[in-house]
Amino acid sequence: MLSAVYPGSFDPITNGHLDIIKRSASCFDKLYVAVFENRSKTPLFSVNERIEMISEECKNISNVEVTSSCGLLVNFARDKGIRVLIKGLRAVSDFDYEFKMALMNKKLAPDIETVFMMTSLEYMYLSSSLVKEVAAYGGCVRDLVPPSVESKLLKKLAGKQTLS
Amino acid sequence: MLSAVYPGSFDPITNGHLDIIKRSASCFDKLYVAVFENRSKTPLFSVNERIEMISEECKNISNVEVTSSCGLLVNFARDKGIRVLIKGLRAVSDFDYEFKMALMNKKLAPDIETVFMMTSLEYMYLSSSLVKEVAAYGGCVRDLVPPSVESKLLKKLAGKQTLS
Amino acid sequence: MLSAVYPGSFDPITNGHLDIIKRSASCFDKLYVAVFENRSKTPLFSVNERIEMISEECKNISNVEVTSSCGLLVNFARDKGIRVLIKGLRAVSDFDYEFKMALMNKKLAPDIETVFMMTSLEYMYLSSSLVKEVAAYGGCVRDLVPPSVESKLLKKLAGKQTLS
Amino acid sequence: MLSAVYPGSFDPITNGHLDIIKRSASCFDKLYVAVFENRSKTPLFSVNERIEMISEECKNISNVEVTSSCGLLVNFARDKGIRVLIKGLRAVSDFDYEFKMALMNKKLAPDIETVFMMTSLEYMYLSSSLVKEVAAYGGCVRDLVPPSVESKLLKKLAGKQTLS
Amino acid sequence: MLSAVYPGSFDPITNGHLDIIKRSASCFDKLYVAVFENRSKTPLFSVNERIEMISEECKNISNVEVTSSCGLLVNFARDKGIRVLIKGLRAVSDFDYEFKMALMNKKLAPDIETVFMMTSLEYMYLSSSLVKEVAAYGGCVRDLVPPSVESKLLKKLAGKQTLS
Amino acid sequence: MLSAVYPGSFDPITNGHLDIIKRSASCFDKLYVAVFENRSKTPLFSVNERIEMISEECKNISNVEVTSSCGLLVNFARDKGIRVLIKGLRAVSDFDYEFKMALMNKKLAPDIETVFMMTSLEYMYLSSSLVKEVAAYGGCVRDLVPPSVESKLLKKLAGKQTLS
Repeated sequence: MLSAVYPGSFDPITNGHLDIIKRSASCFDKLYVAVFENRSKTPLFSVNERIEMISEECKNISNVEVTSSCGLLVNFARDKGIRVLIKGLRAVSDFDYEFKMALMNKKLAPDIETVFMMTSLEYMYLSSSLVKEVAAYGGCVRDLVPPSVESKLLKKLAGKQTLS
Repeated sequence: MLSAVYPGSFDPITNGHLDIIKRSASCFDKLYVAVFENRSKTPLFSVNERIEMISEECKNISNVEVTSSCGLLVNFARDKGIRVLIKGLRAVSDFDYEFKMALMNKKLAPDIETVFMMTSLEYMYLSSSLVKEVAAYGGCVRDLVPPSVESKLLKKLAGKQTLS
Repeated sequence: MLSAVYPGSFDPITNGHLDIIKRSASCFDKLYVAVFENRSKTPLFSVNERIEMISEECKNISNVEVTSSCGLLVNFARDKGIRVLIKGLRAVSDFDYEFKMALMNKKLAPDIETVFMMTSLEYMYLSSSLVKEVAAYGGCVRDLVPPSVESKLLKKLAGKQTLS
Repeated sequence: MLSAVYPGSFDPITNGHLDIIKRSASCFDKLYVAVFENRSKTPLFSVNERIEMISEECKNISNVEVTSSCGLLVNFARDKGIRVLIKGLRAVSDFDYEFKMALMNKKLAPDIETVFMMTSLEYMYLSSSLVKEVAAYGGCVRDLVPPSVESKLLKKLAGKQTLS
Repeated sequence: MLSAVYPGSFDPITNGHLDIIKRSASCFDKLYVAVFENRSKTPLFSVNERIEMISEECKNISNVEVTSSCGLLVNFARDKGIRVLIKGLRAVSDFDYEFKMALMNKKLAPDIETVFMMTSLEYMYLSSSLVKEVAAYGGCVRDLVPPSVESKLLKKLAGKQTLS
Repeated sequence: MLSAVYPGSFDPITNGHLDIIKRSASCFDKLYVAVFENRSKTPLFSVNERIEMISEECKNISNVEVTSSCGLLVNFARDKGIRVLIKGLRAVSDFDYEFKMALMNKKLAPDIETVFMMTSLEYMYLSSSLVKEVAAYGGCVRDLVPPSVESKLLKKLAGKQTLS
């Protein structure tokens, strides 16, 4: 049985992420979707909120397990017996950074493979930060995130503006 | 009559920006130069100072109007009846980011075109942040910004160093 | 009145080309679509066949004129009083080549602007040569070229295979 | 059971190809290695010679089947019930081309996934054509191709030079 | 006698930096390794600690002098009579940024050359920030930095975690 | 004494090549400019004509020796006791290809360094093939190649057109 992990900050999950999750889940026996904290960024949603949103969207994909981790990705993979790291590719700029990370992960864990999945053409320009920026300025993000994520995002942003 | 907008943070305006403004003004009936606040960066000049510097440099180009905005670029364009968004291209790295933004703007407003203008070869490496960095370390920025911008930049940087 | 030219080999015209033509025609007063012979490639369609196919697809866009040329693009532009060269951008690889050409054209004709238009997301991967390759192997190119171009392409390829 | 295909011209197979084959074979239940004729290039080795060389190197990997095809990759995949197309990535230049091909293949066959595997760092600069060029000029290709491929390559090149 | 300078933040020095230092020292009569403060980043090691670590690793290369500077690189070079600026290249992303910096430095000091040295293949993915990130999460950085740097890095990170 | 070689096809030498030659000659004790035959292209000028044109332009740079070679660059370097290979960089596309070649050369000859020199901004878009293409279409190449090269190029192209 071959397991894979799709790591990310998912702050919040977008339709582009969901697209990669569905493709990956159909290619491997078990897929972990793992929320990783990026220490250098202040997230909009807590790890628990993010796990909840992803779980809601993935509840009908039987071989997906949503979880979180705060250490090295390769250590997470080894602990779970995972052989494959999934990365979604959108554009050339992604590739250059992901290439370096994949080489570092290969150095840290030569037995674990990094596998790049193509994002669907229609989500090629999509990222969580771009979605947040558009929503913060009042732009419509309807086709960019799932409906329940859209409403949570608008509530969260409204809350922030009231406080500041 | 076809209107276009050239958006940017212009903190401060460089000779590279001016080059794009002149080229664009000769291609469209009316050109808005719009100062947009980038929330994630602390600017050196206030929006008003930036508008003033751009206006001074563009006072002889009759179809240019300098203004500011703080929302989504496509909303600004729609409010003004603008059909074309102008972006200046300097190098490959620019293109990759601008490509993503153009795709997002096309998604938000399918009726508005993004048009890329080539920066003149001699300004290809120029950016406001590089100009500020060079000036902060005492380097000469004479050919990189207009003379009046150079003196305002030196005064502003001198004031900052006195305070800190 | 501002004229522009969209040059290419158009062997044959694709839906991506048509997309750029429509966008450009809406931004400029007059648009020339000019078939340029690329000496280093053996074309599938003759220049006349290519002009005919483009003309057929553009017959409802009143400010488009389809023509051909065999010299330098900037000379063609000067002869016609054209101020703007239109290039369609699909991906990063395009940009790097087009950037060099734009700098050379600026050197040859400083008074003529190169303007890059964004290809629609759905045509980002499309090129005449890829369309020909797919069709030659029996793949369906229905959404990639206009219907009448598809049938001419299939006839032309069938004729080639009978001969060889 | 999930099958994948790793297509290429393999003219000849390099250690970089073998690296991707081993990684892919460990990630999928069955891996087809398929020699595709590239009509626009004159190959050094015949399709049969190439199949033989690959088969020799893969004889100890039980779930690999070596074959050839001359049509569209997605048609080959459909005929064999293959769900995954494997591409090896070496550098940024690769990615840009492979990205376009993956988008075209997705258009032709939405149910088939393109999956990119990272080439090992030590083979990042390696390609069949570079190996042939180095060998043709008398350079040593010992660590770049398997030993039996090296000797066949030297014999083939010696034969060519005698003829010309 | 031709002098060169290899500037950087070296926070801390990696095996990739050392590789460039050794290559450069063999190509020029004298090599300055100059620690430059990057004002926009909070360093992990002080300038003195960084100079000490580099000096320790370079003590057997007779023509290397380790120093620090806080102004413009070209001013440092002029003060010391240095004709050549050394930059190490790792990947495409580096090149794009370094290209812009080299053009700016050429503008500021036309008599000084920027020379790019290739990083060894095995260090291509290496950067100080990636090393710090891996070490902070408990990953092994043994082959990535010299042994004495590894122990100083682990001590420094342990101290930080105790404090926070 | 440190020798370097600047290899190329120089068909013909451009002002961009001359710029790299002058910069390199000032950085190394001796500089070989070596005309290499590219077997896959049909040259416009013979090797002897190319050597003659380069020699004419370099006659006042005392430490430059112009020569030709037809084997591997690293073998040429070893025969002459050369420690440094010079490559000129123009844009990102160059870098990617040159990076692969540099890695292959490092594999073939670990003791020889590849050093990249920045082309001057004004020659960034220049290549021999672009110069030939512009001249063949009657475009002016005055500032792109030395005057004596320009006249030889025009003669050569006129001869070709008479024949065909």
